[in-house]
Amino acid sequence: MEASTSTDKKPEPIDLSRHYSKATKNRAASNIKKFYKYFSIPGIGNLAGGLPNNNYFPFDTLEATAALPQRFTPTPNKPVNPPTAQPSAAKLSDPVSSSRVVVPKLSDNEDILRKIDLKTALQYGTAQGYPPLYSYLRQFTTENLHPNVPYKGGPEIILTCGATDGLSKTLEALTDTWNEDWDWIGYKEGLLVEEFCYMNAIQAASPRGMNIVPVAIDDEGMKAHGKDGLFDVLKNWDQGRGKRPHLIYTVTIGQNPTGGTLSVQRRKEIYAVCVMFDVIIIEDDPYWYLQYPSANPANPDQTLSRKSQTTFDPSNQGSLTPQKSSGYAFLDSLVPSYLSVDYQGRVVRLDTFSKTVAPGCRLGWITTQPNLCERILRITETSTQQPSGFVQAMIAELIIGPHDPKHGRGGEESAGGWQVDGWVRWLEGLRGNYERRMQTMCSILEDGKELVKSGTVKSLDDEWSVVDKVPMYDFIWPLGGMFVWVHIKFETHPLWKKITPDKLAMALWEHLTTKKYLVLVSPGTIFSPTDEIRDAKGWAYFRMCFAAVDEPEVEKSSKRFVAGVQDFWRKKSLDDIEEISSQAMEASEGLEDLRGGC
Amino acid sequence: MEASTSTDKKPEPIDLSRHYSKATKNRAASNIKKFYKYFSIPGIGNLAGGLPNNNYFPFDTLEATAALPQRFTPTPNKPVNPPTAQPSAAKLSDPVSSSRVVVPKLSDNEDILRKIDLKTALQYGTAQGYPPLYSYLRQFTTENLHPNVPYKGGPEIILTCGATDGLSKTLEALTDTWNEDWDWIGYKEGLLVEEFCYMNAIQAASPRGMNIVPVAIDDEGMKAHGKDGLFDVLKNWDQGRGKRPHLIYTVTIGQNPTGGTLSVQRRKEIYAVCVMFDVIIIEDDPYWYLQYPSANPANPDQTLSRKSQTTFDPSNQGSLTPQKSSGYAFLDSLVPSYLSVDYQGRVVRLDTFSKTVAPGCRLGWITTQPNLCERILRITETSTQQPSGFVQAMIAELIIGPHDPKHGRGGEESAGGWQVDGWVRWLEGLRGNYERRMQTMCSILEDGKELVKSGTVKSLDDEWSVVDKVPMYDFIWPLGGMFVWVHIKFETHPLWKKITPDKLAMALWEHLTTKKYLVLVSPGTIFSPTDEIRDAKGWAYFRMCFAAVDEPEVEKSSKRFVAGVQDFWRKKSLDDIEEISSQAMEASEGLEDLRGGC
Repeated sequence: MEASTSTDKKPEPIDLSRHYSKATKNRAASNIKKFYKYFSIPGIGNLAGGLPNNNYFPFDTLEATAALPQRFTPTPNKPVNPPTAQPSAAKLSDPVSSSRVVVPKLSDNEDILRKIDLKTALQYGTAQGYPPLYSYLRQFTTENLHPNVPYKGGPEIILTCGATDGLSKTLEALTDTWNEDWDWIGYKEGLLVEEFCYMNAIQAASPRGMNIVPVAIDDEGMKAHGKDGLFDVLKNWDQGRGKRPHLIYTVTIGQNPTGGTLSVQRRKEIYAVCVMFDVIIIEDDPYWYLQYPSANPANPDQTLSRKSQTTFDPSNQGSLTPQKSSGYAFLDSLVPSYLSVDYQGRVVRLDTFSKTVAPGCRLGWITTQPNLCERILRITETSTQQPSGFVQAMIAELIIGPHDPKHGRGGEESAGGWQVDGWVRWLEGLRGNYERRMQTMCSILEDGKELVKSGTVKSLDDEWSVVDKVPMYDFIWPLGGMFVWVHIKFETHPLWKKITPDKLAMALWEHLTTKKYLVLVSPGTIFSPTDEIRDAKGWAYFRMCFAAVDEPEVEKSSKRFVAGVQDFWRKKSLDDIEEISSQAMEASEGLEDLRGGC
Repeated sequence: MEASTSTDKKPEPIDLSRHYSKATKNRAASNIKKFYKYFSIPGIGNLAGGLPNNNYFPFDTLEATAALPQRFTPTPNKPVNPPTAQPSAAKLSDPVSSSRVVVPKLSDNEDILRKIDLKTALQYGTAQGYPPLYSYLRQFTTENLHPNVPYKGGPEIILTCGATDGLSKTLEALTDTWNEDWDWIGYKEGLLVEEFCYMNAIQAASPRGMNIVPVAIDDEGMKAHGKDGLFDVLKNWDQGRGKRPHLIYTVTIGQNPTGGTLSVQRRKEIYAVCVMFDVIIIEDDPYWYLQYPSANPANPDQTLSRKSQTTFDPSNQGSLTPQKSSGYAFLDSLVPSYLSVDYQGRVVRLDTFSKTVAPGCRLGWITTQPNLCERILRITETSTQQPSGFVQAMIAELIIGPHDPKHGRGGEESAGGWQVDGWVRWLEGLRGNYERRMQTMCSILEDGKELVKSGTVKSLDDEWSVVDKVPMYDFIWPLGGMFVWVHIKFETHPLWKKITPDKLAMALWEHLTTKKYLVLVSPGTIFSPTDEIRDAKGWAYFRMCFAAVDEPEVEKSSKRFVAGVQDFWRKKSLDDIEEISSQAMEASEGLEDLRGGC
């Protein structure tokens, strides 16, 4: 694969092979590969490949009704006013917003980077990805998403079965499993994570015998310096616990669960510490296009009471000049990836279609320096082989479209594909929808933060009414993502210290699920990477997701949440807590287990 | 999940946990799971799940033109005559053979085992599989495919991203990686494989530091007893090489590359050895429904010259009586899985849709005892999560169909699904097509096995013409699968011993790719699991696949193969070999690398 910019004077990416696991070093390319070129001898009768015949596939076409990229209304990139009002319910039934997509059985296009058909998409393929989709994504990644990667030649990509699969393969590539029964403690690997983090990552790492090492966070995300910041943790690493961690797992835009978004300045600070201690950054970035300028305190209309919130201009990318434009004002307005400061090639970025198309795609890609990408390709060949051709073909046809409308139909009215313009427009529309949801939820939460108690105060010669405001919770308006991270101020609750804080928190959680309030939030305990964090402060947080429920429910549920918390602050006896608990237990009996996502 | 036959008196499956890898033992269920049941509180405003909103998925429907199950003509289950002639070219254009499949955005079916729609299929789901598809496959597996699993409760299933993914997860579950730099040799794991085998399995196991341990084979497959048979290898295991292997990887129907099919009797013998040495059998069975009664020497019309070939009646399942019928004469006629003799629960079976639908599905399932299935579920949750919802929804709709035709269309003319009847009929049709291809190729190869040289012989008083027949190759008509394994008798070639056998073999291989013959076969060397086997006899075999090329090409390529071999047997000087080599090198220059499957 040719480097995108081979004449540049940028530094070469460093050699990461010292980080590879033993199994990763051991991997060899298939010995069948050397025969592949014979497959293309014109007219050859190929009795070598062990393939089924494509005429025996039961699918003659794959088709869809799909959205046009304009279906949803964007929000401004730098709003001085709140975002436009919610458009009335989904336009699903509006025929103008839809198009037909058709993947034919055969396309006569000779260019394999443009040929999209079932003969190729449903056959065995390359681990890198279906050629047209791989080629599109590689170009989008290097030219539009990350036009400023500061190492020579830029990164390579490989398709995955989603970001969880991407993480699993990255851990497989970069860590040896450690067995407490017989391995020396010095070989025990570690994963640096945010103090509150996405637990699926922990569950991927822990069974491999890895230390889970939390790093302190602030409103933005991981701290580079200061107590329990990255430098502090690495500098004072106790070798008795295992090898000093050489991997960070981080979500830097709309972090799950805290909603934090890391500035470019902080990225540079963290990166400098990683250079110092030879650490690789695994950047999981499912929400990168969901950044909300309207939540930025720098926005004059949105100052409210968020004094504590960090103010930064995402478009200020510091000294890395001159910056190449992505070609799209929307993309240029977003805080860029760690890749934009990755002059050594020590960033592994995980992308996914889960939030831009649908989680059921099980489709994503890894972006990193070419040598590591090649190792992950080898892992892919003997595990998932490639993402499903059904989803690769449909998304390729939707976005890229057919070369010739006689051979397929893409997602545009013209029967062409959405192309990069359409894809970016689709993302802008989604950002608009989620930004409006965020505004709805945060406005309601903002208004209900305090319990207003009126009473009377008597002095010697007078009596007057007073208003006492008790702060029940606080939160930061998220600059990105799908979550609001609510800090509950249990210390102001009448029963504080009459019961352990975790029990008080559980009672509030249960109280919210009861008939009157019927709202389910995620307790902070389940995002605590260690027992210490869970016990010390996990109970003090709830994560609220404004993305999943249907649109009118965002408002209703947020109001019920506020009402439920307010009501809970009026509970004054331990008997009330008992009653909540027994009510909740009764209500949840006989309920079916359902799976609920991430 | 309820056991399919909980009142049976069968033995419980044994505890396999001593085989689990350390990482597998370490895995815990997600701590979020305990909250799932709250998700089903009626009317709850769910702000807990971190999901995108399904109304923002760009796909409003997924649709397809798909085959009716009757598209292809079956062959008889016990033919006394050769199979029916090839039907004229594919009936793809015949509208009667096609149906529309439609997966709607929303189905109003309340039963999650029957609800097939994009709202559910494209959302985050369960690692076990999409509920309707999981439920269908579980029933098909336990009632139709393996109605006679001899342990209590029977097996469980979990969906995979194809058999390669299934193997990868099984190895992850059952083996610790071994690092030569610091691990004791006694911990080094091993994988028992057929003497010639599917190399992708080796490539999955080797990087984990596993010994690859070949077991001798005969026409059926792996030998239980005799020199280098399974018992011999395990009994005489040298602990200095590593831990005695506790895993077999085997393909027992139409083995890749040898085409062997293992009888029930042999399965019992191998299984008994596995019980003795506590070995787990990983049965990879992509070709189970491609069994060819017409290749059975017991078939009176097919005796030909295959004297050496094992004769067995696949329907004779020995003493495991009474056998429950699958409900289908076709399925009952097939040699059953190792699961049918698995009274201890030590079989892990890998199934795939790669050869029944298309490789691009990247969809399959694992069948094994419930406890091990649960461990693989945990591995799935932190890696692939689930197969793509695009393929799960399409295949579910095709086979299961909608509950109500207003909400989707299945693959039958009636708009219902194929159901089990249709699925079995589809497999019968595919078997028919591939069996006819096998007959075409094998008939041509059979006729061309010998080089017929005519000459004259003089005696004292007379001169008469003679015919000298030189055997050039031999092969077994495959009882299943997609491959013919051709043993080239290089020892009859004029240049035998004038050049090393591997060079002679390479020259023949190259000769076949030259302009006059244009046929590509797979050299046996690439299926040799060890260097010893490759050097000792790998060069003496070619694998020929009758499945991949278009139908007329099976005949043409087979004829060109015969012509090419015959011509090669006329080469008498080393200069001829030189010339072939330089011709081939010239022809292959500048060819593009293409990927060629398995």
